[in-house]
Amino acid sequence: MGSLDTNPMSSALPNDKAAFEPLNFFAFFPSTNSAAAIAGDLIASAMNTVGFTWQASPAATEMEVLALDWLAQLLRLPTTFMNRTNTGRGTGGGVILGTTSEAMLVTLVAARDAALRRTGSVGVSDIPRLTVYAADQTHSTFFKACRLAGFDPANIRSIPTGSETSYGLDPAKLLEVMQADADAGLVTTYVCATVHVDAAYAGSACICPEFRHHLDGVERVDSISMSPHKWLLTCLDCTCLYVRDAHRLSDSLETNPEYLKNDATDSGEVTDLKDMQVGVGRRFRGLKLWMVMRTYGTAKLQEHIRSDVAIAKMFEDFVRADDRFEVVVPRNFALVCFRIKASGAMTEKDADEVNRVLMENLNKTGKAYLAHTVVGDKFVLRFAVVAARGETCRFQDARPKPLGHSVFPTSC
Amino acid sequence: MGSLDTNPMSSALPNDKAAFEPLNFFAFFPSTNSAAAIAGDLIASAMNTVGFTWQASPAATEMEVLALDWLAQLLRLPTTFMNRTNTGRGTGGGVILGTTSEAMLVTLVAARDAALRRTGSVGVSDIPRLTVYAADQTHSTFFKACRLAGFDPANIRSIPTGSETSYGLDPAKLLEVMQADADAGLVTTYVCATVHVDAAYAGSACICPEFRHHLDGVERVDSISMSPHKWLLTCLDCTCLYVRDAHRLSDSLETNPEYLKNDATDSGEVTDLKDMQVGVGRRFRGLKLWMVMRTYGTAKLQEHIRSDVAIAKMFEDFVRADDRFEVVVPRNFALVCFRIKASGAMTEKDADEVNRVLMENLNKTGKAYLAHTVVGDKFVLRFAVVAARGETCRFQDARPKPLGHSVFPTSC
Repeated sequence: MGSLDTNPMSSALPNDKAAFEPLNFFAFFPSTNSAAAIAGDLIASAMNTVGFTWQASPAATEMEVLALDWLAQLLRLPTTFMNRTNTGRGTGGGVILGTTSEAMLVTLVAARDAALRRTGSVGVSDIPRLTVYAADQTHSTFFKACRLAGFDPANIRSIPTGSETSYGLDPAKLLEVMQADADAGLVTTYVCATVHVDAAYAGSACICPEFRHHLDGVERVDSISMSPHKWLLTCLDCTCLYVRDAHRLSDSLETNPEYLKNDATDSGEVTDLKDMQVGVGRRFRGLKLWMVMRTYGTAKLQEHIRSDVAIAKMFEDFVRADDRFEVVVPRNFALVCFRIKASGAMTEKDADEVNRVLMENLNKTGKAYLAHTVVGDKFVLRFAVVAARGETCRFQDARPKPLGHSVFPTSC
Repeated sequence: MGSLDTNPMSSALPNDKAAFEPLNFFAFFPSTNSAAAIAGDLIASAMNTVGFTWQASPAATEMEVLALDWLAQLLRLPTTFMNRTNTGRGTGGGVILGTTSEAMLVTLVAARDAALRRTGSVGVSDIPRLTVYAADQTHSTFFKACRLAGFDPANIRSIPTGSETSYGLDPAKLLEVMQADADAGLVTTYVCATVHVDAAYAGSACICPEFRHHLDGVERVDSISMSPHKWLLTCLDCTCLYVRDAHRLSDSLETNPEYLKNDATDSGEVTDLKDMQVGVGRRFRGLKLWMVMRTYGTAKLQEHIRSDVAIAKMFEDFVRADDRFEVVVPRNFALVCFRIKASGAMTEKDADEVNRVLMENLNKTGKAYLAHTVVGDKFVLRFAVVAARGETCRFQDARPKPLGHSVFPTSC
């Protein structure tokens, strides 16, 4: 084997330094972290537990399930999404996955298989008839997950949004498109027969009562996912998926080879987390989420969200106070979408170019790093507050609580 | 929110202790670990890098790609599977995924889409005609990955194996089944049009020259995956997927939303690892693999494999020396599949029961933990050597080398 003459580290590092300097990176959604999460991940790495079945690691399974139930309490999710309620084990439950894409993929596959059963499809012969729906502002990974699950690209409906609904999904438009599909003999499968809520980023904010209304109606959906690795001080990767009926997932995802058969599974009393995810093997991700929640408690976690939102609001106020700029999409959380306005002889197209140059020049300074997107045909700058990024000692005064509490602590 | 009265930790822990005591756990394939991997993972957790595009983290991308190329050198994979060769950037490459299932899923999806293009399918209308093939000894997760990708369960061919081929795939049988499918108008898609080698466990052994022949012919396959988290001292999760033509993956997995557009991607000179995996976000897994290889070097890693194989051979010799037992499948690596033989008035069915009782009683002692499987209708005990499990200080004397080498060091 010959010698490789590349030395990528030296050339790549200077660029990286700018991109990940914590205090001036506003480009993508936050990827927050904390000492508790890092400690939890360290222990998980050292233990190297592989909790695919309950039997393979009862403690890892129970701890993940407990952390998920705590988070469900914090988000005030209906108990139907919880693994354990006051009245015992329900039909719902949760699982920690790597990314939102995986949550979308497994729920899409479950919805696909349920739709095929409903239509009486011979094998997968009806797959070309299945349709799925999402707003045109939905993350591109949704469309990728649909393709992975075998949906026809032509049947993935991107519902147009506009400023009149603040770029949110318009139920009337959705219904219209779905009705047209049903009339054409297609099978509406996802959003409809199965409704999934992607709250990857904003879900974290819903731990604060003043933002919880964004989840109103969640009791009527089949599944919801949110990613503590985005905004809840938990390092990558940690996406929490909750479903109302765990059997709808395991019907599609269960494997039961001879070498994994065991009494605990046969009893039906335990959760085998492998049956709610893509693969079999799995990292013990529950530990870091448990550590974050146990260490900081409701009050500190809410304070962290509110602090980021306050900084974003301050930035939004700066933008609004300056006539040269406009806020393009009303700010809900800690993301401000803004741009230089077209004014005077400047066309919208000119304004797009001016905004692009502004972003490029700003990013070149190394003093700040922004990203852009296109909303309603406009080139828009994104300012996402990530104040906790890298601030691993932010909550270092918080004291861990003793083990054994099953109710999530409301303060430190 | 009511109080939850479960206290899972106290009831679950005693069971767990038995299952994960390092020195007497022989049930599943090893999940080996090392101080270098834990340190690498710790740094990755603390940095919390999200290298979805090269631009988002050039150093994380380059380091992952470098670690993959080193491992490819160690496995003596053809340069067509490497990201960078003496003559520059090739068409092949690698990516680190979470599990083998993900490697199977993304290559299945790429093969599916290529087959649909070949047949001139309108959208996914030809999906019901696509067929895939694997030996009946293939891990159950393969069949799950096929279902996830939308293949018809009736078109997933499980080729029977027997003791005459040591339970390996019989090419003559495979060809026969494929020919029958082609004659019936079906489209042979995977194993055939795309050949993927799953070397999740055994791949690690192929770093030793005496085992490398198990990869003979790899230059003719399209993809190969192996999991350093199984047997190469790298904690979960770390599965390396190598492909000969990275475009066949990215054709199916690429996303290119406005907010991720950047000059580096446009140049075509860099790898955006998001286009070779299920999701977008990703943990910096390359660091721990880099640390393991940099710290231990070829000689120590080979010594680790050989030591486990020697222990398994010793156990196999014990079994063979005892007339009451038989070795059911010839041992290749560090897994011994054995059982109590049917003898005297004992039927094969009786022997199955006797073996089951032996395993259950052994597992109850807490002194050893075995798993079982069924091979050729026989209930068989599995003894998998995991000597390195938990031995995080095994190679603590090895000294890290200075940064900057691009050729993988052949010894410490």
